[in-house]
Amino acid sequence: MDATVMYKITYGLYIIGAKKGDRINAQIANTVVQISNDPITVAISINKQNLTHDYILSGGYFTVSILDQNAPLSLIGQFGFKSGRETDKFTGVNYSTTANGLPYITEHSLAYMEAKVIDRLDAGTHTIFLGQVTAAENLKAGEPMTYAYYRQIKKGGTPPAAPTYQGTQKEVKAERAEKADQKMDKYVCKLCGYVYDPEKGDPDNNIAPGTPFADLPDDWVCPVCGVGKDQFEKES
Amino acid sequence: MDATVMYKITYGLYIIGAKKGDRINAQIANTVVQISNDPITVAISINKQNLTHDYILSGGYFTVSILDQNAPLSLIGQFGFKSGRETDKFTGVNYSTTANGLPYITEHSLAYMEAKVIDRLDAGTHTIFLGQVTAAENLKAGEPMTYAYYRQIKKGGTPPAAPTYQGTQKEVKAERAEKADQKMDKYVCKLCGYVYDPEKGDPDNNIAPGTPFADLPDDWVCPVCGVGKDQFEKES
Repeated sequence: MDATVMYKITYGLYIIGAKKGDRINAQIANTVVQISNDPITVAISINKQNLTHDYILSGGYFTVSILDQNAPLSLIGQFGFKSGRETDKFTGVNYSTTANGLPYITEHSLAYMEAKVIDRLDAGTHTIFLGQVTAAENLKAGEPMTYAYYRQIKKGGTPPAAPTYQGTQKEVKAERAEKADQKMDKYVCKLCGYVYDPEKGDPDNNIAPGTPFADLPDDWVCPVCGVGKDQFEKES
Repeated sequence: MDATVMYKITYGLYIIGAKKGDRINAQIANTVVQISNDPITVAISINKQNLTHDYILSGGYFTVSILDQNAPLSLIGQFGFKSGRETDKFTGVNYSTTANGLPYITEHSLAYMEAKVIDRLDAGTHTIFLGQVTAAENLKAGEPMTYAYYRQIKKGGTPPAAPTYQGTQKEVKAERAEKADQKMDKYVCKLCGYVYDPEKGDPDNNIAPGTPFADLPDDWVCPVCGVGKDQFEKES
């Protein structure tokens, strides 16, 4: 069996929101699909280790914010590489809440929906939640972020709890090898796999193209997962 | 609720194969996602009305052929707009079978996998099948066909049993309206929604760009669903 076949499945990139009591949380996910049209139902897959899983199970609702292709890596890092157990993921993020009090992202989303859990399937490490859509609004025009775009254009990584973790790391490595003939050294975040490419800089954080890694400010952090420069290593 | 939000979910395009006794069948689907990594499991969603649903339920296995972006509309039409109850969908198609005898498409697929059904979730009009992957091979390099590419570039339609049916028809209509100022009349297939655009012709079937609909050969058929010219109407 060649597990790399799994990398050829196409996904979008979403932020899943949930609420338990008066607490809210949200996380990145790529597994969102419409299942039926009448009534409109959607299915999502969430790792059982994640706090959002606990909140969906308790609260019985979830939201899906459909990310804009131009959403910054920092937003994905905030919701994909940090845990709501240790940090308030919504700090500095523009969000709103549904009539039921569930959070959705407003600034970098094309649209959002809210769904009520009507059934679920235990899938080992993950649970598939089937939800009947209870609210849905478009927020702005644009192209949805796809998982392929995130990996290829944005050079983003995948956290260990994601089903696609293993594959993505390999693919990122292959992409790196292809570009090994470029002049300035690239540096890789050991936590999330983000690659700092001096030719591109980090425009989201005012680092101009052409800035070598060594010249980055001491307080510069990984735009995806937020760790410091000491967590980077030279790309081999 | 704005149901058009559903159009912003990202999908690939796949052919799902199944076997019941010594009979095989297959159908187009866009709902394929990896669920877990250890073991590798995938979930698919299949309309209960489809023959493939019956075969998966009986046979306990399914295959997923991951379509190449360059797969012709005729292949999608053969597996998406015809029923295995009335036709042998594999006529003229290059396919092979797994060790368990399940069919997968060889000519226009980047890869395929076979999975054993380990659980399922009743989702009203559809069933979500959870499968543990039992075989997976890459067939060739290339970009996977996405549902967005199929609709936007290939101008393909959606059969009524698909969860995304309503939405897609509306989107296709919106796309048509945008281009209403072009010179030669376009014709729409009443069955599947395929649009014949004289400016583009139908290169898959040797119809040169610039060929008006009226000049198409009498035996020309819809490249997606296979109906004759009499099933087309002028785009309004």
